[in-house]
Amino acid sequence: MTNQKIKECIDACLACMMACNHCATECLKEDNVKMMAKCIQSDMECAALCRSAAELMSLGSNYSKVLCKICADACNTCADECEKHAEMGMEHCKECAEACRRCAEACEQIAKAA
Amino acid sequence: MTNQKIKECIDACLACMMACNHCATECLKEDNVKMMAKCIQSDMECAALCRSAAELMSLGSNYSKVLCKICADACNTCADECEKHAEMGMEHCKECAEACRRCAEACEQIAKAA
Amino acid sequence: MTNQKIKECIDACLACMMACNHCATECLKEDNVKMMAKCIQSDMECAALCRSAAELMSLGSNYSKVLCKICADACNTCADECEKHAEMGMEHCKECAEACRRCAEACEQIAKAA
Amino acid sequence: MTNQKIKECIDACLACMMACNHCATECLKEDNVKMMAKCIQSDMECAALCRSAAELMSLGSNYSKVLCKICADACNTCADECEKHAEMGMEHCKECAEACRRCAEACEQIAKAA
Repeated sequence: MTNQKIKECIDACLACMMACNHCATECLKEDNVKMMAKCIQSDMECAALCRSAAELMSLGSNYSKVLCKICADACNTCADECEKHAEMGMEHCKECAEACRRCAEACEQIAKAA
Repeated sequence: MTNQKIKECIDACLACMMACNHCATECLKEDNVKMMAKCIQSDMECAALCRSAAELMSLGSNYSKVLCKICADACNTCADECEKHAEMGMEHCKECAEACRRCAEACEQIAKAA
Repeated sequence: MTNQKIKECIDACLACMMACNHCATECLKEDNVKMMAKCIQSDMECAALCRSAAELMSLGSNYSKVLCKICADACNTCADECEKHAEMGMEHCKECAEACRRCAEACEQIAKAA
Repeated sequence: MTNQKIKECIDACLACMMACNHCATECLKEDNVKMMAKCIQSDMECAALCRSAAELMSLGSNYSKVLCKICADACNTCADECEKHAEMGMEHCKECAEACRRCAEACEQIAKAA
Protein backbone atom coordinates (compact mmCIF):
# COMPACT_ATOMS: atom_id res chain seq x y z
CA MET A 1 0.00 0.00 0.00
CA THR A 2 1.08 3.55 -0.60
CA ASN A 3 1.70 4.59 2.96
CA GLN A 4 1.52 3.37 6.50
CA LYS A 5 -1.24 5.70 7.76
CA ILE A 6 -3.59 4.71 4.96
CA LYS A 7 -2.83 1.05 5.48
CA GLU A 8 -3.64 1.36 9.19
CA CYS A 9 -6.87 3.17 8.42
CA ILE A 10 -7.96 0.51 5.92
CA ASP A 11 -7.31 -2.14 8.58
CA ALA A 12 -9.29 -0.16 11.17
CA CYS A 13 -12.21 0.25 8.74
CA LEU A 14 -12.31 -3.44 7.87
CA ALA A 15 -12.06 -4.51 11.52
CA CYS A 16 -14.90 -2.11 12.32
CA MET A 17 -17.08 -3.35 9.45
CA MET A 18 -16.68 -6.93 10.67
CA ALA A 19 -17.33 -5.97 14.32
CA CYS A 20 -20.53 -4.19 13.21
CA ASN A 21 -21.76 -7.17 11.19
CA HIS A 22 -20.99 -9.51 14.08
CA CYS A 23 -22.65 -7.17 16.59
CA ALA A 24 -25.83 -6.97 14.44
CA THR A 25 -26.04 -10.76 14.23
CA GLU A 26 -25.51 -11.18 17.97
CA CYS A 27 -28.00 -8.40 18.82
CA LEU A 28 -30.62 -10.40 16.92
CA LYS A 29 -30.06 -13.31 19.33
CA GLU A 30 -30.63 -11.21 22.47
CA ASP A 31 -33.81 -11.74 24.50
CA ASN A 32 -34.83 -8.11 24.23
CA VAL A 33 -34.25 -7.49 20.52
CA LYS A 34 -36.41 -4.38 20.56
CA MET A 35 -33.93 -2.67 22.89
CA MET A 36 -31.20 -3.45 20.33
CA ALA A 37 -33.05 -2.11 17.26
CA LYS A 38 -31.22 1.22 17.14
CA CYS A 39 -27.91 -0.59 17.64
CA ILE A 40 -28.56 -2.97 14.74
CA GLN A 41 -29.52 -0.05 12.50
CA SER A 42 -26.29 1.85 13.40
CA ASP A 43 -24.31 -1.34 12.83
CA MET A 44 -25.67 -1.73 9.31
CA GLU A 45 -25.03 1.91 8.35
CA CYS A 46 -21.58 1.97 9.92
CA ALA A 47 -20.57 -1.29 8.20
CA ALA A 48 -21.63 0.12 4.81
CA LEU A 49 -19.56 3.29 5.32
CA CYS A 50 -16.50 1.43 6.64
CA ARG A 51 -16.55 -0.86 3.60
CA SER A 52 -16.82 2.10 1.26
CA ALA A 53 -14.02 4.08 2.94
CA ALA A 54 -11.70 1.05 2.92
CA GLU A 55 -12.49 0.31 -0.71
CA LEU A 56 -11.79 3.85 -1.88
CA MET A 57 -8.53 4.02 0.08
CA SER A 58 -7.39 0.72 -1.42
CA LEU A 59 -8.13 2.16 -4.87
CA GLY A 60 -6.02 5.22 -4.06
CA SER A 61 -9.06 7.39 -4.73
CA ASN A 62 -9.23 11.16 -4.23
CA TYR A 63 -12.59 10.55 -2.56
CA SER A 64 -10.87 8.74 0.33
CA LYS A 65 -10.65 11.77 2.58
CA VAL A 66 -14.26 12.86 2.31
CA LEU A 67 -15.44 9.27 2.86
CA CYS A 68 -13.23 8.97 5.93
CA LYS A 69 -14.80 12.10 7.38
CA ILE A 70 -18.31 10.66 7.03
CA CYS A 71 -17.16 7.25 8.22
CA ALA A 72 -15.64 8.75 11.40
CA ASP A 73 -19.00 10.34 12.16
CA ALA A 74 -20.93 7.09 11.63
CA CYS A 75 -18.40 5.19 13.76
CA ASN A 76 -18.79 7.58 16.67
CA THR A 77 -22.59 7.41 16.43
CA CYS A 78 -22.45 3.61 16.44
CA ALA A 79 -19.99 3.59 19.36
CA ASP A 80 -22.28 5.88 21.38
CA GLU A 81 -25.11 3.41 20.90
CA CYS A 82 -23.04 0.28 21.56
CA GLU A 83 -21.51 1.72 24.72
CA LYS A 84 -24.96 1.87 26.34
CA HIS A 85 -25.26 -1.90 25.97
CA ALA A 86 -21.59 -2.54 26.74
CA GLU A 87 -22.25 -1.10 30.19
CA MET A 88 -24.95 -3.74 30.62
CA GLY A 89 -22.43 -6.49 29.86
CA MET A 90 -22.98 -7.25 26.20
CA GLU A 91 -19.59 -8.36 24.92
CA HIS A 92 -20.39 -7.92 21.19
CA CYS A 93 -21.38 -4.30 21.84
CA LYS A 94 -18.22 -3.68 23.86
CA GLU A 95 -16.03 -5.07 21.07
CA CYS A 96 -17.97 -3.14 18.46
CA ALA A 97 -17.73 0.14 20.37
CA GLU A 98 -13.95 -0.28 20.68
CA ALA A 99 -13.56 -1.08 16.98
CA CYS A 100 -15.73 1.95 16.13
CA ARG A 101 -13.66 4.35 18.27
CA ARG A 102 -10.39 3.09 16.79
CA CYS A 103 -11.79 3.43 13.28
CA ALA A 104 -13.14 6.93 13.97
CA GLU A 105 -9.72 8.05 15.15
CA ALA A 106 -7.90 6.55 12.17
CA CYS A 107 -10.43 8.05 9.74
CA GLU A 108 -10.20 11.50 11.32
CA GLN A 109 -6.44 11.47 10.80
CA ILE A 110 -6.85 10.65 7.11
CA ALA A 111 -9.60 13.25 6.71
CA LYS A 112 -7.41 15.94 8.27
CA ALA A 113 -4.17 15.02 6.46
CA ALA A 114 -2.77 17.69 4.15
CA MET B 1 -24.48 -5.94 -21.11
CA THR B 2 -23.58 -9.18 -22.87
CA ASN B 3 -27.01 -10.71 -23.08
CA GLN B 4 -30.59 -10.14 -22.07
CA LYS B 5 -30.94 -13.05 -19.60
CA ILE B 6 -27.89 -11.91 -17.61
CA LYS B 7 -29.08 -8.32 -17.65
CA GLU B 8 -32.47 -9.38 -16.28
CA CYS B 9 -30.84 -11.48 -13.59
CA ILE B 10 -28.59 -8.59 -12.50
CA ASP B 11 -31.66 -6.38 -12.22
CA ALA B 12 -33.51 -9.04 -10.20
CA CYS B 13 -30.51 -9.44 -7.85
CA LEU B 14 -30.18 -5.70 -7.26
CA ALA B 15 -33.91 -5.26 -6.71
CA CYS B 16 -33.80 -8.15 -4.22
CA MET B 17 -30.77 -6.73 -2.38
CA MET B 18 -32.54 -3.41 -1.95
CA ALA B 19 -35.80 -5.07 -0.86
CA CYS B 20 -33.85 -7.07 1.75
CA ASN B 21 -32.08 -3.98 3.11
CA HIS B 22 -35.37 -2.10 3.26
CA CYS B 23 -37.14 -5.07 4.91
CA ALA B 24 -34.42 -5.34 7.58
CA THR B 25 -34.71 -1.64 8.40
CA GLU B 26 -38.50 -1.80 8.59
CA CYS B 27 -38.44 -5.02 10.68
CA LEU B 28 -36.37 -3.10 13.24
CA LYS B 29 -39.24 -0.62 13.62
CA GLU B 30 -41.87 -3.29 14.34
CA ASP B 31 -43.28 -3.58 17.88
CA ASN B 32 -42.30 -7.21 18.19
CA VAL B 33 -38.73 -7.09 16.88
CA LYS B 34 -37.90 -10.44 18.43
CA MET B 35 -40.39 -12.14 16.15
CA MET B 36 -38.56 -10.55 13.20
CA ALA B 37 -35.02 -11.58 14.23
CA LYS B 38 -34.77 -14.54 11.86
CA CYS B 39 -36.19 -12.41 9.05
CA ILE B 40 -33.58 -9.66 9.58
CA GLN B 41 -30.80 -12.26 9.61
CA SER B 42 -32.04 -13.80 6.33
CA ASP B 43 -32.34 -10.31 4.85
CA MET B 44 -28.71 -9.53 5.63
CA GLU B 45 -27.39 -12.81 4.23
CA CYS B 46 -29.58 -12.65 1.13
CA ALA B 47 -28.57 -9.03 0.43
CA ALA B 48 -24.87 -9.97 0.63
CA LEU B 49 -25.32 -12.84 -1.83
CA CYS B 50 -27.46 -10.84 -4.26
CA ARG B 51 -24.84 -8.08 -4.34
CA SER B 52 -22.10 -10.61 -4.98
CA ALA B 53 -23.98 -12.42 -7.74
CA ALA B 54 -24.85 -9.14 -9.48
CA GLU B 55 -21.27 -7.90 -9.20
CA LEU B 56 -19.78 -11.06 -10.69
CA MET B 57 -22.29 -11.09 -13.53
CA SER B 58 -21.54 -7.46 -14.35
CA LEU B 59 -17.83 -8.36 -14.46
CA GLY B 60 -18.62 -11.20 -16.90
CA SER B 61 -17.05 -13.64 -14.45
CA ASN B 62 -16.95 -17.40 -14.84
CA TYR B 63 -18.02 -17.58 -11.18
CA SER B 64 -21.40 -16.06 -12.04
CA LYS B 65 -23.19 -19.39 -12.41
CA VAL B 66 -22.06 -20.91 -9.13
CA LEU B 67 -22.88 -17.68 -7.28
CA CYS B 68 -26.33 -17.60 -8.85
CA LYS B 69 -26.98 -21.12 -7.61
CA ILE B 70 -26.16 -20.14 -4.01
CA CYS B 71 -28.03 -16.87 -4.35
CA ALA B 72 -31.19 -18.66 -5.53
CA ASP B 73 -31.05 -20.83 -2.41
CA ALA B 74 -30.63 -17.84 -0.07
CA CYS B 75 -33.46 -16.00 -1.84
CA ASN B 76 -35.86 -18.90 -1.38
CA THR B 77 -34.90 -19.22 2.30
CA CYS B 78 -35.50 -15.51 2.82
CA ALA B 79 -38.80 -15.65 0.93
CA ASP B 80 -39.99 -18.55 3.10
CA GLU B 81 -39.34 -16.47 6.20
CA CYS B 82 -40.82 -13.23 4.84
CA GLU B 83 -43.98 -14.96 3.65
CA LYS B 84 -44.85 -15.88 7.25
CA HIS B 85 -44.99 -12.19 8.12
CA ALA B 86 -46.55 -11.18 4.81
CA GLU B 87 -49.55 -13.27 5.78
CA MET B 88 -49.80 -11.15 8.93
CA GLY B 89 -49.99 -7.97 6.85
CA MET B 90 -46.43 -6.70 6.88
CA GLU B 91 -46.01 -4.91 3.56
CA HIS B 92 -42.17 -4.81 3.63
CA CYS B 93 -42.08 -8.59 4.07
CA LYS B 94 -44.58 -9.07 1.25
CA GLU B 95 -42.50 -6.93 -1.12
CA CYS B 96 -39.32 -8.63 -0.02
CA ALA B 97 -40.74 -12.13 -0.49
CA GLU B 98 -41.84 -11.23 -4.01
CA ALA B 99 -38.43 -9.76 -4.91
CA CYS B 100 -36.76 -12.88 -3.47
CA ARG B 101 -38.89 -15.30 -5.52
CA ARG B 102 -38.30 -13.33 -8.74
CA CYS B 103 -34.57 -13.26 -8.03
CA ALA B 104 -34.45 -16.98 -7.19
CA GLU B 105 -36.11 -17.80 -10.50
CA ALA B 106 -33.78 -15.56 -12.53
CA CYS B 107 -30.72 -16.97 -10.74
CA GLU B 108 -31.81 -20.56 -11.29
CA GLN B 109 -32.05 -19.92 -15.02
CA ILE B 110 -28.51 -18.54 -15.11
CA ALA B 111 -27.19 -21.39 -12.96
CA LYS B 112 -28.75 -23.97 -15.28
CA ALA B 113 -27.77 -22.31 -18.59
CA ALA B 114 -25.42 -24.32 -20.78
CA MET C 1 -39.47 1.98 -0.37
CA THR C 2 -40.23 5.18 1.47
CA ASN C 3 -40.66 7.51 -1.48
CA GLN C 4 -40.51 7.62 -5.24
CA LYS C 5 -37.53 9.99 -5.59
CA ILE C 6 -35.33 7.82 -3.38
CA LYS C 7 -36.43 4.68 -5.18
CA GLU C 8 -35.53 6.22 -8.52
CA CYS C 9 -32.17 7.34 -7.22
CA ILE C 10 -31.38 3.85 -5.87
CA ASP C 11 -32.22 2.42 -9.29
CA ALA C 12 -30.03 5.00 -11.03
CA CYS C 13 -27.12 4.22 -8.66
CA LEU C 14 -27.38 0.48 -9.19
CA ALA C 15 -27.67 0.84 -12.96
CA CYS C 16 -24.61 3.08 -12.90
CA MET C 17 -22.60 0.69 -10.72
CA MET C 18 -23.32 -2.15 -13.15
CA ALA C 19 -22.52 0.00 -16.20
CA CYS C 20 -19.20 0.95 -14.59
CA ASN C 21 -18.28 -2.67 -13.81
CA HIS C 22 -19.22 -3.71 -17.34
CA CYS C 23 -17.29 -0.78 -18.85
CA ALA C 24 -14.15 -1.67 -16.86
CA THR C 25 -14.31 -5.28 -18.04
CA GLU C 26 -14.82 -4.26 -21.67
CA CYS C 27 -12.06 -1.62 -21.50
CA LEU C 28 -9.67 -4.41 -20.50
CA LYS C 29 -10.46 -6.18 -23.79
CA GLU C 30 -9.64 -3.16 -25.98
CA ASP C 31 -6.50 -3.20 -28.13
CA ASN C 32 -5.15 -0.03 -26.58
CA VAL C 33 -5.73 -0.75 -22.88
CA LYS C 34 -3.29 1.96 -21.83
CA MET C 35 -5.54 4.61 -23.34
CA MET C 36 -8.37 3.22 -21.16
CA ALA C 37 -6.46 3.18 -17.85
CA LYS C 38 -7.97 6.39 -16.49
CA CYS C 39 -11.43 5.21 -17.57
CA ILE C 40 -11.06 1.89 -15.73
CA GLN C 41 -9.87 3.70 -12.60
CA SER C 42 -12.88 6.08 -12.70
CA ASP C 43 -15.17 3.10 -13.28
CA MET C 44 -13.91 1.34 -10.14
CA GLU C 45 -14.22 4.43 -7.94
CA CYS C 46 -17.62 5.37 -9.33
CA ALA C 47 -18.95 1.82 -8.86
CA ALA C 48 -17.82 1.81 -5.23
CA LEU C 49 -19.57 5.12 -4.51
CA CYS C 50 -22.77 4.16 -6.35
CA ARG C 51 -22.99 0.94 -4.37
CA SER C 52 -22.48 2.81 -1.12
CA ALA C 53 -25.05 5.52 -1.91
CA ALA C 54 -27.64 2.91 -2.94
CA GLU C 55 -27.00 0.84 0.16
CA LEU C 56 -27.38 3.79 2.55
CA MET C 57 -30.56 4.95 0.84
CA SER C 58 -32.04 1.45 1.06
CA LEU C 59 -31.23 1.47 4.78
CA GLY C 60 -33.03 4.82 5.15
CA SER C 61 -29.82 6.31 6.52
CA ASN C 62 -29.29 9.96 7.40
CA TYR C 63 -25.97 9.68 5.58
CA SER C 64 -27.80 9.20 2.26
CA LYS C 65 -27.69 12.86 1.27
CA VAL C 66 -24.00 13.43 1.83
CA LEU C 67 -23.15 10.18 0.02
CA CYS C 68 -25.33 11.22 -2.91
CA LYS C 69 -23.44 14.51 -3.16
CA ILE C 70 -20.09 12.69 -3.42
CA CYS C 71 -21.55 10.07 -5.74
CA ALA C 72 -22.85 12.75 -8.13
CA ASP C 73 -19.35 14.18 -8.33
CA ALA C 74 -17.75 10.80 -9.04
CA CYS C 75 -20.41 10.05 -11.68
CA ASN C 76 -19.74 13.28 -13.53
CA THR C 77 -15.98 12.67 -13.44
CA CYS C 78 -16.48 9.17 -14.82
CA ALA C 79 -18.88 10.44 -17.50
CA ASP C 80 -16.34 13.09 -18.61
CA GLU C 81 -13.78 10.35 -19.11
CA CYS C 82 -16.13 7.88 -20.81
CA GLU C 83 -17.46 10.51 -23.20
CA LYS C 84 -13.98 10.90 -24.72
CA HIS C 85 -14.05 7.24 -25.75
CA ALA C 86 -17.74 7.27 -26.64
CA GLU C 87 -16.90 9.80 -29.36
CA MET C 88 -14.45 7.24 -30.74
CA GLY C 89 -17.23 4.66 -31.02
CA MET C 90 -16.81 2.59 -27.88
CA GLU C 91 -20.31 1.42 -27.03
CA HIS C 92 -19.55 0.38 -23.41
CA CYS C 93 -18.22 3.89 -22.70
CA LYS C 94 -21.25 5.50 -24.30
CA GLU C 95 -23.63 3.40 -22.17
CA CYS C 96 -21.56 4.05 -19.07
CA ALA C 97 -21.46 7.82 -19.65
CA GLU C 98 -25.24 7.89 -20.02
CA ALA C 99 -25.77 5.86 -16.85
CA CYS C 100 -23.35 8.15 -15.01
CA ARG C 101 -25.13 11.35 -16.10
CA ARG C 102 -28.54 9.94 -15.14
CA CYS C 103 -27.16 8.87 -11.76
CA ALA C 104 -25.46 12.23 -11.16
CA GLU C 105 -28.73 14.03 -11.79
CA ALA C 106 -30.75 11.73 -9.50
CA CYS C 107 -28.13 12.01 -6.75
CA GLU C 108 -28.01 15.80 -6.97
CA GLN C 109 -31.77 15.93 -6.44
CA ILE C 110 -31.50 13.80 -3.31
CA ALA C 111 -28.52 15.80 -2.03
CA LYS C 112 -30.43 19.09 -2.46
CA ALA C 113 -33.77 17.86 -1.07
CA ALA C 114 -34.93 19.62 2.09
CA MET D 1 -16.11 -13.46 16.67
CA THR D 2 -17.28 -17.01 17.15
CA ASN D 3 -13.97 -18.78 16.76
CA GLN D 4 -10.33 -18.22 15.96
CA LYS D 5 -10.23 -20.05 12.61
CA ILE D 6 -13.11 -18.01 11.21
CA LYS D 7 -11.60 -14.79 12.51
CA GLU D 8 -8.31 -15.59 10.79
CA CYS D 9 -10.09 -16.43 7.56
CA ILE D 10 -12.05 -13.15 7.62
CA ASP D 11 -8.77 -11.28 8.11
CA ALA D 12 -7.15 -13.18 5.23
CA CYS D 13 -10.13 -12.43 2.95
CA LEU D 14 -10.11 -8.72 3.76
CA ALA D 15 -6.33 -8.45 3.33
CA CYS D 16 -6.68 -10.22 -0.02
CA MET D 17 -9.52 -7.98 -1.18
CA MET D 18 -7.44 -4.90 -0.40
CA ALA D 19 -4.33 -6.34 -2.07
CA CYS D 20 -6.41 -7.08 -5.19
CA ASN D 21 -7.85 -3.55 -5.32
CA HIS D 22 -4.39 -2.07 -4.84
CA CYS D 23 -2.89 -4.38 -7.47
CA ALA D 24 -5.57 -3.41 -10.02
CA THR D 25 -4.92 0.29 -9.44
CA GLU D 26 -1.14 -0.15 -9.75
CA CYS D 27 -1.48 -2.37 -12.86
CA LEU D 28 -3.32 0.52 -14.52
CA LYS D 29 -0.22 2.70 -14.02
CA GLU D 30 2.17 0.24 -15.71
CA ASP D 31 3.62 1.10 -19.14
CA ASN D 32 2.30 -2.06 -20.71
CA VAL D 33 -1.27 -2.09 -19.39
CA LYS D 34 -2.40 -4.56 -22.05
CA MET D 35 -0.09 -7.19 -20.56
CA MET D 36 -1.84 -6.62 -17.20
CA ALA D 37 -5.43 -6.87 -18.48
CA LYS D 38 -5.99 -10.46 -17.33
CA CYS D 39 -4.45 -9.61 -13.97
CA ILE D 40 -6.78 -6.64 -13.43
CA GLN D 41 -9.79 -8.77 -14.36
CA SER D 42 -8.77 -11.50 -11.87
CA ASP D 43 -8.18 -8.83 -9.24
CA MET D 44 -11.70 -7.48 -9.62
CA GLU D 45 -13.34 -10.91 -9.47
CA CYS D 46 -11.19 -12.07 -6.58
CA ALA D 47 -11.88 -8.88 -4.59
CA ALA D 48 -15.64 -9.33 -5.07
CA LEU D 49 -15.52 -12.94 -3.81
CA CYS D 50 -13.24 -12.14 -0.85
CA ARG D 51 -15.59 -9.37 0.26
CA SER D 52 -18.57 -11.68 0.00
CA ALA D 53 -16.90 -14.54 1.89
CA ALA D 54 -15.77 -12.21 4.68
CA GLU D 55 -19.21 -10.64 4.94
CA LEU D 56 -21.02 -13.97 5.21
CA MET D 57 -18.56 -15.27 7.81
CA SER D 58 -18.99 -12.11 9.88
CA LEU D 59 -22.76 -12.66 9.73
CA GLY D 60 -22.29 -16.23 10.96
CA SER D 61 -24.03 -17.46 7.83
CA ASN D 62 -24.48 -21.09 6.82
CA TYR D 63 -23.39 -20.03 3.34
CA SER D 64 -19.88 -19.26 4.63
CA LYS D 65 -18.41 -22.64 3.72
CA VAL D 66 -19.62 -22.76 0.14
CA LEU D 67 -18.48 -19.16 -0.43
CA CYS D 68 -15.06 -19.98 1.01
CA LYS D 69 -14.70 -22.86 -1.43
CA ILE D 70 -15.38 -20.58 -4.42
CA CYS D 71 -13.22 -17.84 -2.95
CA ALA D 72 -10.26 -20.22 -2.56
CA ASP D 73 -10.55 -21.09 -6.23
CA ALA D 74 -10.66 -17.43 -7.33
CA CYS D 75 -7.69 -16.63 -5.07
CA ASN D 76 -5.56 -19.37 -6.60
CA THR D 77 -6.47 -18.25 -10.12
CA CYS D 78 -5.54 -14.67 -9.28
CA ALA D 79 -2.29 -15.78 -7.62
CA ASP D 80 -1.35 -17.82 -10.73
CA GLU D 81 -1.76 -14.70 -12.85
CA CYS D 82 0.01 -12.33 -10.42
CA GLU D 83 2.97 -14.65 -10.00
CA LYS D 84 3.82 -14.29 -13.70
CA HIS D 85 4.31 -10.56 -13.19
CA ALA D 86 5.91 -10.95 -9.77
CA GLU D 87 8.72 -12.83 -11.48
CA MET D 88 9.23 -9.75 -13.66
CA GLY D 89 9.67 -7.58 -10.58
CA MET D 90 6.24 -6.04 -10.06
CA GLU D 91 5.93 -5.54 -6.33
CA HIS D 92 2.12 -5.06 -6.27
CA CYS D 93 1.68 -8.40 -8.05
CA LYS D 94 4.08 -10.12 -5.64
CA GLU D 95 2.17 -8.78 -2.62
CA CYS D 96 -1.16 -9.67 -4.21
CA ALA D 97 -0.07 -13.21 -5.05
CA GLU D 98 1.04 -13.76 -1.46
CA ALA D 99 -2.21 -12.40 -0.04
CA CYS D 100 -4.16 -14.61 -2.48
CA ARG D 101 -2.29 -17.80 -1.48
CA ARG D 102 -2.76 -17.07 2.23
CA CYS D 103 -6.46 -16.42 1.67
CA ALA D 104 -6.89 -19.56 -0.46
CA GLU D 105 -5.37 -21.66 2.31
CA ALA D 106 -7.51 -20.11 5.04
CA CYS D 107 -10.66 -20.48 2.93
CA GLU D 108 -9.92 -24.12 2.12
CA GLN D 109 -9.68 -24.88 5.82
CA ILE D 110 -13.08 -23.31 6.47
CA ALA D 111 -14.61 -25.06 3.46
CA LYS D 112 -13.34 -28.45 4.65
CA ALA D 113 -14.22 -28.01 8.35
CA ALA D 114 -16.79 -30.45 9.69
